[in-house]
Amino acid sequence: LSSAIAIGIDIGGTRLRTATVATDGTILDRRRRSTPAADGSSLIAAIEEEVAAISGSLPDARSLPVGIGIAGLVSPDGLVRYGPNIGIRDLPVAEELRARLERPVAVLNDASAAALGEQRAGAGQGRSDVLMFTLGTGVGGGVVVGGQLVVGAGGFAGELGHVIVERGGRRCPCGNRGCVEAYASGRSIGEQAIERLEAGSRASRLRGLDEVDGAAVSQAAADGDVFAQELLRDVGGWLGIAIASCVNALDPEMVLLGGGAASAVAPFALPTTRTTVDEHVIGHGFRDMPPIELAVLGDDAGTVGAAVYAAEHAPDHAAAGEGPA
Amino acid sequence: LSSAIAIGIDIGGTRLRTATVATDGTILDRRRRSTPAADGSSLIAAIEEEVAAISGSLPDARSLPVGIGIAGLVSPDGLVRYGPNIGIRDLPVAEELRARLERPVAVLNDASAAALGEQRAGAGQGRSDVLMFTLGTGVGGGVVVGGQLVVGAGGFAGELGHVIVERGGRRCPCGNRGCVEAYASGRSIGEQAIERLEAGSRASRLRGLDEVDGAAVSQAAADGDVFAQELLRDVGGWLGIAIASCVNALDPEMVLLGGGAASAVAPFALPTTRTTVDEHVIGHGFRDMPPIELAVLGDDAGTVGAAVYAAEHAPDHAAAGEGPA
Repeated sequence: LSSAIAIGIDIGGTRLRTATVATDGTILDRRRRSTPAADGSSLIAAIEEEVAAISGSLPDARSLPVGIGIAGLVSPDGLVRYGPNIGIRDLPVAEELRARLERPVAVLNDASAAALGEQRAGAGQGRSDVLMFTLGTGVGGGVVVGGQLVVGAGGFAGELGHVIVERGGRRCPCGNRGCVEAYASGRSIGEQAIERLEAGSRASRLRGLDEVDGAAVSQAAADGDVFAQELLRDVGGWLGIAIASCVNALDPEMVLLGGGAASAVAPFALPTTRTTVDEHVIGHGFRDMPPIELAVLGDDAGTVGAAVYAAEHAPDHAAAGEGPA
Repeated sequence: LSSAIAIGIDIGGTRLRTATVATDGTILDRRRRSTPAADGSSLIAAIEEEVAAISGSLPDARSLPVGIGIAGLVSPDGLVRYGPNIGIRDLPVAEELRARLERPVAVLNDASAAALGEQRAGAGQGRSDVLMFTLGTGVGGGVVVGGQLVVGAGGFAGELGHVIVERGGRRCPCGNRGCVEAYASGRSIGEQAIERLEAGSRASRLRGLDEVDGAAVSQAAADGDVFAQELLRDVGGWLGIAIASCVNALDPEMVLLGGGAASAVAPFALPTTRTTVDEHVIGHGFRDMPPIELAVLGDDAGTVGAAVYAAEHAPDHAAAGEGPA
């Protein structure tokens, strides 16, 4: 039986997941609740409750480090600069929790955590250089090089959703234009469907729906809707451009697609993604193209990765000056 | 006085440079000759001669590892898969030289070597996360993360000239379309100048020249030619798109522009590059933008980086099975 190495927490706009994770990356225990709305102090309190609750279930859990993956821009010192989907800004998550929990705490971006989780215990196991794109409401990402997560100088590495695929292109929620998120996120897939339906007379079972989002488009595609299938093929092409740029920069062993929307989008998007990557990666005939595959850990990727990261990187709270252990 | 750590060799299409490099990255001795044309065996012989010649100048140089940066796609085991500017293909440079030199040998891409050189001993000194674009006849690059050069799964990382800035855009010598090299290399700057002159009636002192290349455009811009200045501003914009994608993926502390064309292009291109990067990096108001600066080591960057890489990564030739030391 593997022993626990850390507690991992994954905080998205909707769900807050907590898990105790073993040395081999398997989950020993998991919990789930809604992400508290509105303010930082209720979020900190919720994390504290979840850590206490899950720590009660294991004899050695009280001293385990805690890793927190959170949807937002996170500084290396665990300050969440901006988490629009959770409604927080400049919240010193690591500092507050170290004081309250009296254990090592590390905070990182949620998609980066998921990438690390998949690399260590999921679809990327045994590979040391892995890129992951997470397709959900937005598009996130994570970069693992030499077996280590790349967090970057300011903690903002891995924002693969903001690799630019079309200069002056579609407006992205980040405020810029032409990011791959503006083409391949669930939100943007829905928007593109509506724009195309409004612009043309194409037949589609999406026409007339009250709400057209990425899930509706994927469902229509799965039901044989040609309009929806074509849109997802186009999405796959844009994703391929972003992947190709990253492959040229980093030459990973493998590229993973994860996040809530990936498995529904992939059947229609992935063939075009692969073709587009082949057409835009340097070295035809001199290299193998990295496999582009679906992630396998699902909702567990983030908690696993956050726990692994904390086990390896969380500064001890005593060493960090928060008082004696 | 610093002692020598390795011999670094930088092999481009025109010049073959050799240097003995000290622990602090300074050069103790340097040599230069033309890159031999045509075939692999003359290249191997030239390297052997240069190593012998420079080894004679230092008492401890006979056992120093040798690092070779070479313009081409290089596998991690030191096989040069494809070096079109040098005229070689599938040449096992490391294997051949280990047997002949009886010392540790490492081979890597020349632009990656230059990036490592600048990070350790040049404009990036003291920074652990540095990206470098090298602007020359083509556009190369190198990625340093956590103080270590990223070589990638197949040795092809750092091909930043092939980050895609315009899907379906200009044809790149790599065979693909829309790579930043197709907009920002010396070759492509010359081509774009000719295309614009042929397409319009714009006044320019470039009009009527026998040969319009990147150097001619830069010179014209420096001489006040508005047409050339506008072209270089556009080049700066495309470079900014590629840099922004890389910054979003990797969040480096600094981005460097090096290579033979950088200092001539920069006065006109760099302001637009910086503006474009600002407009396309995620997290306005929540982060500092990485500085984008000129490299400082010039022609020494490649030899310094190759030597540093060999000192840290060259497998011992005995350990590599090439016989006893």
